[in-house]
Amino acid sequence: MKIAVVGIGLIGGSMALDIKTAFENVEVIGVDKNEKNAKKAKDLNLIDAIGELKDLQNADVVIVSVPVDVSIKVLSEVLDHVGENTLVLDTGSTKEKICESVKNHTKRRNYLAAHPIAGTEFSGPEAAIQDLYRGKTMIVCEVEKTAFKLQEIAFEIFQKLGMRIRYMDPHSHDKHIAYVSHLSHISAFMLGKTVLEKEKNEKDIFDLAGSGFASTVRLAKSSPAMWSPIFQQNKENVLETLTEYIQNLNEFKNLIEQDNFKKLYEEMENTNHIKNVLNGIN
Amino acid sequence: MKIAVVGIGLIGGSMALDIKTAFENVEVIGVDKNEKNAKKAKDLNLIDAIGELKDLQNADVVIVSVPVDVSIKVLSEVLDHVGENTLVLDTGSTKEKICESVKNHTKRRNYLAAHPIAGTEFSGPEAAIQDLYRGKTMIVCEVEKTAFKLQEIAFEIFQKLGMRIRYMDPHSHDKHIAYVSHLSHISAFMLGKTVLEKEKNEKDIFDLAGSGFASTVRLAKSSPAMWSPIFQQNKENVLETLTEYIQNLNEFKNLIEQDNFKKLYEEMENTNHIKNVLNGIN
Repeated sequence: MKIAVVGIGLIGGSMALDIKTAFENVEVIGVDKNEKNAKKAKDLNLIDAIGELKDLQNADVVIVSVPVDVSIKVLSEVLDHVGENTLVLDTGSTKEKICESVKNHTKRRNYLAAHPIAGTEFSGPEAAIQDLYRGKTMIVCEVEKTAFKLQEIAFEIFQKLGMRIRYMDPHSHDKHIAYVSHLSHISAFMLGKTVLEKEKNEKDIFDLAGSGFASTVRLAKSSPAMWSPIFQQNKENVLETLTEYIQNLNEFKNLIEQDNFKKLYEEMENTNHIKNVLNGIN
Repeated sequence: MKIAVVGIGLIGGSMALDIKTAFENVEVIGVDKNEKNAKKAKDLNLIDAIGELKDLQNADVVIVSVPVDVSIKVLSEVLDHVGENTLVLDTGSTKEKICESVKNHTKRRNYLAAHPIAGTEFSGPEAAIQDLYRGKTMIVCEVEKTAFKLQEIAFEIFQKLGMRIRYMDPHSHDKHIAYVSHLSHISAFMLGKTVLEKEKNEKDIFDLAGSGFASTVRLAKSSPAMWSPIFQQNKENVLETLTEYIQNLNEFKNLIEQDNFKKLYEEMENTNHIKNVLNGIN
């Protein structure tokens, strides 16, 4: 099987690693406009060779794993270059604008819109790890628009990587993912900012930080090149979640100001229910 | 060595476990107004016997690990009951009001104000674990007000538990800890609330949640009985951090509304610096 990965970082690189393990006779070509990244990916054995868009003609599967603003530009080009039987999938954290960008492409049926709910706060080829996808969810959008035979190839890959599949329309995907993914990143980034600003004046503050702070702020290490375009493409939904989050924080602040600690207790007790829904996520 | 733990939960229970391992001939008495908790602690072998305040007379060390509102009431009572050579330490996440509560007590020199920067989001005796304190920081306040011989006992325990010690005044402690601990809890609780509220209307939203969300919202599982009194006692500092946090969130929101994604990128890039300060925290 001939795989091409366009954008060799954490997501594409980890997927290449797992496909190499799960299938026999896999050859992986890496396409990356950042030459350093491509070379690093080669050195790390994530890919077997460095290629260009014109090499996609003979690929069985092309994985497009670039920031979502780049996806919108590059996905059509990729489809222009691939063969009649090549499966193209993207892995972006937004789906509506990306699906929109190729909806009239003559090779639309070669494309599968996908979003793996997996990752770490790190990025680049050196962040790629084995088994990143095991036990995780792959969201697939507009499955009916992909050629049946190519769906089969995609699902065999996802299954061998240990993923469960959920089908959604792109609009619902972007709405829901704003709550359970995009908002967490903003919450962490601004927590990091608030504490860093304080640190400027008060030295040694981080000596007092424990595992709770580290966990809550972890996503503030994430790549701006990946996240800025996500917030842009999912602007409307992200603003909705952010408005609700700020409103809840203001209400919590009011309760403290009014010394209403009985209500504050209840608020936290109600939210403890998150225990049940987090079971099974790690 | 005779140890008494007043309030047998995650913090006191874990400390009892480690002291038993680190020292020979340790006997641990548990004092808890919740009989179920005390019995559970006995069943779990965190303590050797269930006792009462009057039994503290003969203890070498008393660890007061109760919610901070209870500390303020019970710490003076504990000091009333202990012997001349008993070390009493508390483990509360606020220090100014607790130190204030015993400043005129005739046995003030028996007391050491401490705060271990360690814990998990779980609570109760069943949450107690071995080695919770290894490699963690113990903040000690007003060390000069504790009898020298009792300081020595405390530092021997902390050292054997694998902790490093940092000295602070209670006022600075409460101010700094609001940033690196108390604010993270509010941020997580309100993130949990925002997403749970959405879930009421939109089923299955949590199927889409990944490890990033789980990490950011983890502290929302924390005990309201522990955290409501902390927010109350550290009201002023917590309100300050919360005001700054909400302001930063509003500014981030404005940048998205104004399509200023260049500045948004820079904001995130600046905050990526958190990577460096988080090194060594796990």
